[in-house]
Amino acid sequence: MAAKIRDVRHGTGVQGQVSQSRWLRRTGAARLEFGADYNPEQWPREVWDDDARAMRTAGVTIVTLGVFSWALLEPAEGEYDFGWLDDAMDLMHVNGIAVDLATATASPPPWLTTKHPEILPVTADGVTLWPGGRQQWRPTSAVFRTHALRLTRAMAERYGGHPALVAWHVSNELGCHNIYDYSDDAAAAFRLWLRERYATLDALNAAWATAFWSQHLSAWEQVLPPRTAASFPNPTQQLDFKRFSSDALKDHLRAERAVLREVTPDVPVTTNFMVMGETKGMNYADWAAEVDFVSNDHYVQPGPQGRDELSFSANLTGGLAGGRPWFLMEHSTSAVNWQPVNVAKRPGELARDSMTHVAYGADAVCYFQWRQSAAGAEKYHSGMIPHAGEDSTLFRAVADLGKRLGDLAPLAGTPRTPARAAILFDWESWWAAEADSHPTDRLRYRQEALDWYTAFLDLGVRADVLPVAAPLDGYDLVVAPILHVVPASLASRLTAFVQAGGHLVATYFSGVVDENDHVWLGGYPGPLRDLLGIRIEEFAPLLDDERVTLDNGSTGTLWTDRIDVSTEDVEVLARYTTGDQAGRPAVTWNPTAGGAAGYVSTRLGPQGLATVLGEFLSRAGIESELPPDQRGKVELAIRGDFHFLINRTDEPIDLGGYLLAADGVVVVRE
Amino acid sequence: MAAKIRDVRHGTGVQGQVSQSRWLRRTGAARLEFGADYNPEQWPREVWDDDARAMRTAGVTIVTLGVFSWALLEPAEGEYDFGWLDDAMDLMHVNGIAVDLATATASPPPWLTTKHPEILPVTADGVTLWPGGRQQWRPTSAVFRTHALRLTRAMAERYGGHPALVAWHVSNELGCHNIYDYSDDAAAAFRLWLRERYATLDALNAAWATAFWSQHLSAWEQVLPPRTAASFPNPTQQLDFKRFSSDALKDHLRAERAVLREVTPDVPVTTNFMVMGETKGMNYADWAAEVDFVSNDHYVQPGPQGRDELSFSANLTGGLAGGRPWFLMEHSTSAVNWQPVNVAKRPGELARDSMTHVAYGADAVCYFQWRQSAAGAEKYHSGMIPHAGEDSTLFRAVADLGKRLGDLAPLAGTPRTPARAAILFDWESWWAAEADSHPTDRLRYRQEALDWYTAFLDLGVRADVLPVAAPLDGYDLVVAPILHVVPASLASRLTAFVQAGGHLVATYFSGVVDENDHVWLGGYPGPLRDLLGIRIEEFAPLLDDERVTLDNGSTGTLWTDRIDVSTEDVEVLARYTTGDQAGRPAVTWNPTAGGAAGYVSTRLGPQGLATVLGEFLSRAGIESELPPDQRGKVELAIRGDFHFLINRTDEPIDLGGYLLAADGVVVVRE
Amino acid sequence: MAAKIRDVRHGTGVQGQVSQSRWLRRTGAARLEFGADYNPEQWPREVWDDDARAMRTAGVTIVTLGVFSWALLEPAEGEYDFGWLDDAMDLMHVNGIAVDLATATASPPPWLTTKHPEILPVTADGVTLWPGGRQQWRPTSAVFRTHALRLTRAMAERYGGHPALVAWHVSNELGCHNIYDYSDDAAAAFRLWLRERYATLDALNAAWATAFWSQHLSAWEQVLPPRTAASFPNPTQQLDFKRFSSDALKDHLRAERAVLREVTPDVPVTTNFMVMGETKGMNYADWAAEVDFVSNDHYVQPGPQGRDELSFSANLTGGLAGGRPWFLMEHSTSAVNWQPVNVAKRPGELARDSMTHVAYGADAVCYFQWRQSAAGAEKYHSGMIPHAGEDSTLFRAVADLGKRLGDLAPLAGTPRTPARAAILFDWESWWAAEADSHPTDRLRYRQEALDWYTAFLDLGVRADVLPVAAPLDGYDLVVAPILHVVPASLASRLTAFVQAGGHLVATYFSGVVDENDHVWLGGYPGPLRDLLGIRIEEFAPLLDDERVTLDNGSTGTLWTDRIDVSTEDVEVLARYTTGDQAGRPAVTWNPTAGGAAGYVSTRLGPQGLATVLGEFLSRAGIESELPPDQRGKVELAIRGDFHFLINRTDEPIDLGGYLLAADGVVVVRE
Repeated sequence: MAAKIRDVRHGTGVQGQVSQSRWLRRTGAARLEFGADYNPEQWPREVWDDDARAMRTAGVTIVTLGVFSWALLEPAEGEYDFGWLDDAMDLMHVNGIAVDLATATASPPPWLTTKHPEILPVTADGVTLWPGGRQQWRPTSAVFRTHALRLTRAMAERYGGHPALVAWHVSNELGCHNIYDYSDDAAAAFRLWLRERYATLDALNAAWATAFWSQHLSAWEQVLPPRTAASFPNPTQQLDFKRFSSDALKDHLRAERAVLREVTPDVPVTTNFMVMGETKGMNYADWAAEVDFVSNDHYVQPGPQGRDELSFSANLTGGLAGGRPWFLMEHSTSAVNWQPVNVAKRPGELARDSMTHVAYGADAVCYFQWRQSAAGAEKYHSGMIPHAGEDSTLFRAVADLGKRLGDLAPLAGTPRTPARAAILFDWESWWAAEADSHPTDRLRYRQEALDWYTAFLDLGVRADVLPVAAPLDGYDLVVAPILHVVPASLASRLTAFVQAGGHLVATYFSGVVDENDHVWLGGYPGPLRDLLGIRIEEFAPLLDDERVTLDNGSTGTLWTDRIDVSTEDVEVLARYTTGDQAGRPAVTWNPTAGGAAGYVSTRLGPQGLATVLGEFLSRAGIESELPPDQRGKVELAIRGDFHFLINRTDEPIDLGGYLLAADGVVVVRE
Repeated sequence: MAAKIRDVRHGTGVQGQVSQSRWLRRTGAARLEFGADYNPEQWPREVWDDDARAMRTAGVTIVTLGVFSWALLEPAEGEYDFGWLDDAMDLMHVNGIAVDLATATASPPPWLTTKHPEILPVTADGVTLWPGGRQQWRPTSAVFRTHALRLTRAMAERYGGHPALVAWHVSNELGCHNIYDYSDDAAAAFRLWLRERYATLDALNAAWATAFWSQHLSAWEQVLPPRTAASFPNPTQQLDFKRFSSDALKDHLRAERAVLREVTPDVPVTTNFMVMGETKGMNYADWAAEVDFVSNDHYVQPGPQGRDELSFSANLTGGLAGGRPWFLMEHSTSAVNWQPVNVAKRPGELARDSMTHVAYGADAVCYFQWRQSAAGAEKYHSGMIPHAGEDSTLFRAVADLGKRLGDLAPLAGTPRTPARAAILFDWESWWAAEADSHPTDRLRYRQEALDWYTAFLDLGVRADVLPVAAPLDGYDLVVAPILHVVPASLASRLTAFVQAGGHLVATYFSGVVDENDHVWLGGYPGPLRDLLGIRIEEFAPLLDDERVTLDNGSTGTLWTDRIDVSTEDVEVLARYTTGDQAGRPAVTWNPTAGGAAGYVSTRLGPQGLATVLGEFLSRAGIESELPPDQRGKVELAIRGDFHFLINRTDEPIDLGGYLLAADGVVVVRE
Repeated sequence: MAAKIRDVRHGTGVQGQVSQSRWLRRTGAARLEFGADYNPEQWPREVWDDDARAMRTAGVTIVTLGVFSWALLEPAEGEYDFGWLDDAMDLMHVNGIAVDLATATASPPPWLTTKHPEILPVTADGVTLWPGGRQQWRPTSAVFRTHALRLTRAMAERYGGHPALVAWHVSNELGCHNIYDYSDDAAAAFRLWLRERYATLDALNAAWATAFWSQHLSAWEQVLPPRTAASFPNPTQQLDFKRFSSDALKDHLRAERAVLREVTPDVPVTTNFMVMGETKGMNYADWAAEVDFVSNDHYVQPGPQGRDELSFSANLTGGLAGGRPWFLMEHSTSAVNWQPVNVAKRPGELARDSMTHVAYGADAVCYFQWRQSAAGAEKYHSGMIPHAGEDSTLFRAVADLGKRLGDLAPLAGTPRTPARAAILFDWESWWAAEADSHPTDRLRYRQEALDWYTAFLDLGVRADVLPVAAPLDGYDLVVAPILHVVPASLASRLTAFVQAGGHLVATYFSGVVDENDHVWLGGYPGPLRDLLGIRIEEFAPLLDDERVTLDNGSTGTLWTDRIDVSTEDVEVLARYTTGDQAGRPAVTWNPTAGGAAGYVSTRLGPQGLATVLGEFLSRAGIESELPPDQRGKVELAIRGDFHFLINRTDEPIDLGGYLLAADGVVVVRE
């Protein structure tokens, strides 16, 4: 491959295919879109023409308009002022820039919350969340819904036929600040949701195990959200409330979508997910089916695994999109404003971050926001034009990237090329595994998944990050980190995968509970015991300063299990040499009819995981697609003919004649 | 003694005496009881027979039933469903298992809190504590009281004559989650309580020192609980609210007891205390007189002094029981679920922990709970039968212990043999010494008492832990750590003890205030100045990173005092060599008519305390009852003829031919 | 100077001049006042005579009476009981002690909050702040105002003619606990305040940038305080609420003052500020014009810069007083009670602390409080007579100081002698620079100012600490640490200062926003770019563990800037040698018409600042007034003929024959 390296900055001229069924409503050749949230209402009209000119300079092809414009578009109930938005839409159109138009319902205007304070969310402590920020609305408020849908209809009727319009953007970052509402509206909606799920009180009592702590429910009206209680609230009530809360916002998405599809059936509908870091309230694996194409917002997380987390999130977003291209709705050109310390990006990071999203399937690369605000809560959040103006290093880097993406038009529409290995990601296990009253409250579900991902990167082996319900056909190795919630049906699917020759690896605290958070009895991990060939009598979590050593040289933290192997066939790949489990198995491998199933019983971190993963890969017959000297240094992503090589190090890498700079990304057409 | 060592595992056959006036209502030979909370309502009926069989296997003699059964026993107001409990009671009886029956009022059912949300507790911030966990009731709610007493009466009438019934268990862990309630009900009850205590507003104003900060009360209705305030609330108001809150729950205990005694005068009544760790809201020294026998729940606290804390708590529980045997109502076979990290017990720890309670007077050893829950908030709390089932190391260890306790039947009823030394423990000093606006907020009352206890253990000398009001006759040395609240009457008692030849040791921040938290003037420690022969002009607490050195080689933290000795008779046992008090006394000893009184002015920790305690013991003429090579390694407890030797180390100890394993406990009949 | 050293303890006999227009209403020779808050109502009547005798022993000349006496003075609405206060006033008068009489409105009595709970403050979370502490009143409550003014009038009418009365003390520590109230009263008052500031909603919308996040206000009733919101509240709303909250209390001060001036026009009015540490809610630069003379409360802050902070606060208080003498209303003789650990003062500290205030302009030295309380929330706060009584080291030290202040009578009325350098202090920059959603939340405005002050002290150069609006005429060097808020008018003033030959130094995050917290565009620091000769494209804050090195040997933390210098004239005084800005300027100096302007782009801490400050001083032609061997060790303050030399070290210093003890202060008359 090294001999064929050619930077697509210099253009390839080949037309890419568009494969997804529903993408932006636009004509013309396929292309990668480039742009930002554009909030012209924050600026005097005379700035707008300057904006349009600079957008062309930067290679902008698309903007998102209207995200927080409700108060200006509907200054009084039922009275609209569309003039300024007409103007902005037209301005974009004459400049050849497409518009992803928001329904503008993300934040209700002051007149609405003043007239109807009953739409404000309420915390578990009973504290009302007042206006002053954004998203001050209850997902279950009928009053809010009525007002939001009226505006949605008005927007659809006004702009459905506008030539600049290419997609609808429902609300914005649904659930970023209002995912959990404990109001009486929420209580009523929660009851309805539970009736739908359980049908009878008996079924609900059984699922919630209300025989414990005198919680037997004898009427639906007795059901409450898990508001602040005297002691630990019922765990299944908590889990169901998380499910309900995700569904309540999904329902809002569906409601706005229904209006849009009715009025403008030809315009695709999306909403921007937030697959990133610890944002965990919205089950996007479940939401993905509700949008015409998947969109995501991603901001680089601080810390040493920042780059890998970006890649992981992009990869998972691709998984949510079923491998089809998706829309990066927001990321940042440089610093954000909401971390304790907001570090500016270094030269090269801007392009590297954006290109990594493209590598994992983004066909649109957009920022929050076009022009950095001079005022308001996000004025220190970077934009495409910084406070310093166009005469700035940052704006020049933005324009460079715009040019580069323009040259990559042939890539547009190309789906990602599946890997042979996959990591399963499951929102319900995330929610359930991190609940209170557990063996340890230190467990972090997503961090464990990310550590596995880093281990794959360190070994130079591609792995797809998939929602747990995704088909596993074609994968040779599937890793299930902390797959805590395993209903019988999932156990069957995993067993079938192994019986069909697949290789499965599970970790500590997997397979412990069913869909109702009831423990599978008889020894852990209940429904996976036979498949894994092990039985665990007791969990043995570790204190913060405790570490255990394995005989393969690795070190474990956080957790150990007291494992007995069930048959002689089970190989012990590593044993504990210290701690209470010294002499017992730490990592096991059960060759079974067709395939095999492995188990890792402690937190090994990326380095320790790379050791055992190497062994698992070898047994699954998977090798790196990278030359040996590039493994771990270069990250590889493949979309059809296009190979993305991303420098993971702080040093330049010699790719056989071509020097890949630190933070460099090269795209090679095979 | 070493020559006589014989493990009672092998049986002694001698009948123990039963000395307490009121113990379980049962016939047959005295025995040590063994069992658990049993919650059959969490399991299908077919499991119950299996339970009964396994209980017999494990040597179970008693279970507690009905603790959280209100919602199932009274599914609607005034409508009872006793059928399932009849069944369970009968099942126990036919299997020879006694029942400690709960009044089932620990947590109100959802229908009750739905109908009467005004029984829910309210925090100091005004946050309502909702259902979802347990104990969601105001101790002062008349509505709750009415419903709870109706159920109590129904239970008493239904089961008073059942042959399995041996004791009533009022509510459960009273105050675990609802000790402090700031509702309007609480306010009203607090006013009544204060009228009872002070009779007149003038007396209340004087006690609360309301001349300070314009707080003069001119009507009773102006009194409030110490709800969240703009600044530090009145300290006497806070102290009285703590007293009132303890009394409010004690009043609930008395109310249920009154019903039970009326209906079933022959059945003893108890409730499970929580003498452990930082559980400090309930003044158990005051509650102990209200029960027919003392019961306690204890869970091992994390940290290096975990074993000593267990021993300390068991010892103090024995003190509350006046030296008579008591009932260990709950402890755990292995991990709990409510700590940040819940560590499983290692082999041997189960028996060691249980036997330690027996050593200090427990005649019943029970767990929470019989069968580990598959669901609910405590599903990761260990039980006698773990999730893994009977085929488990844990269940086998449980059955071993059951056998061992069976063999120890001769011990049953034997009171503890008083030591010559004692440590005083005072809930009021605990509350007052840790209040806000003090010289330091780092002071920890119970930790200081525990450190003294560890020092006694390290020296191999037995010490009884006694409530402050206990008679001191017969003790040669009494240590009063941080005895902060010293009313005049207590000062007189302590003085009389010394005058009668006793040796008293007090520490820093002792004798500072009277019962109203008013400082004794003229130099600290006011009412003990003459007794101790010292006068302190100013406290000199230490910053977190400050340490001072004493000329006896010890190191002090947390606190120092600027001490002047009052007479030439006072010996300075140690002086500060560093810090602001360098050259001044750190530890003093005042030989006075009859006995002597010592003072320790800094926090020395267990090791430093052992040094000064050695000196105090020597002067009090107290020697270890252990051979020199066992002191510090072996913990000794004595109940009549029975000597308990507990290995405090992680290594086996040679007891002169008999090897006491790590975590081992041996019982020797002299 | 060394040759002339003479300790004024031994008396100088020269009469000082009194220069301020309005000081205490008393006759007789000018003197330094000495005293305390006196709360006789906390003690039996028989103690009062003892108090008066001991006050004379201690040299007390003035006391503050009645601060928290409302509940006793007005035991029921409109019914007064002045008898005891008459008695106390008379007792002071016959003992020759003046009285600074409080209006007694600091804390409302229980009868008032019981009858009118609607005067209680409410937090941003909606939590009511109940009685129990002090200051439980909403600054904007009309009900509270009515009651407070009625009492004020009654006090004025009763005592206006009393011969002991020398000043009125309005309320007490206004805002200590009730500066931020989010109640409906506050909301209504905030709207009125905003109407006054902005006149039109259009102007308010523009200032608050409500186009962001759909916050456009279409009616005044929609305005709310920044109560707890779903996300970051509007920053200008927050800043205006801080301004409003300061003004609301200032309005209360004016309202009480109006009553006092009407009834007793000849009695000066003051209120005690809290210029100390992180007390930042009250804009005292704005309040200072409202009092007849400035009073301050100061408590030594824990930590290594405690002494310098005391000096800084005293210096700033002098700045607020326009250089005229001021009244130290409260400080402590030894420990306080509200820190986590409350350390007693060491010998010598008492006098050193008090004398430092005198050095910077205090003509009255008073404590909280005369006799340490035996009960109540502040019973562990030291007093002039400690719990131990008059027979104590502490009381003897108090009496020594009283004698020393008596001897210093000639100093009374002498204004401070201006320094040639100044540090600007700006409450609005403090508020705005530490707001949320910023480049870093680690920035501490006052700490940076204090670090500069320490650097001046370390170099032995005097600097006045001035409110930002103070005239700069006569200063050669003005340092503006984090002068974040720079309206156009302030930029003009600073430019004029430099054009007139002045030397200005600004630091990181200065000149970033205007009075509405809107960023000045085109590159930072907008309105100071030309003056400083630099342009910054992006901020580059540092993570907690990041440090950067400068080529002058200093180390920077917290912050860096990406600086470009604008012209060749700009000197780069130090460059970064590590980090993302390596090679770029860190400290710059722009010689410009008349004067020069320097910039420091990172946090250097006192030591690093001393390096660059030395250079700045040299360029401004300012030299230390101390001999070289005393610089850094001795702190110099000058009031006319009187030079104060304060030992900043823990060792004695040889002042040329005179040995200045550790913690020593010597006053030399030139």
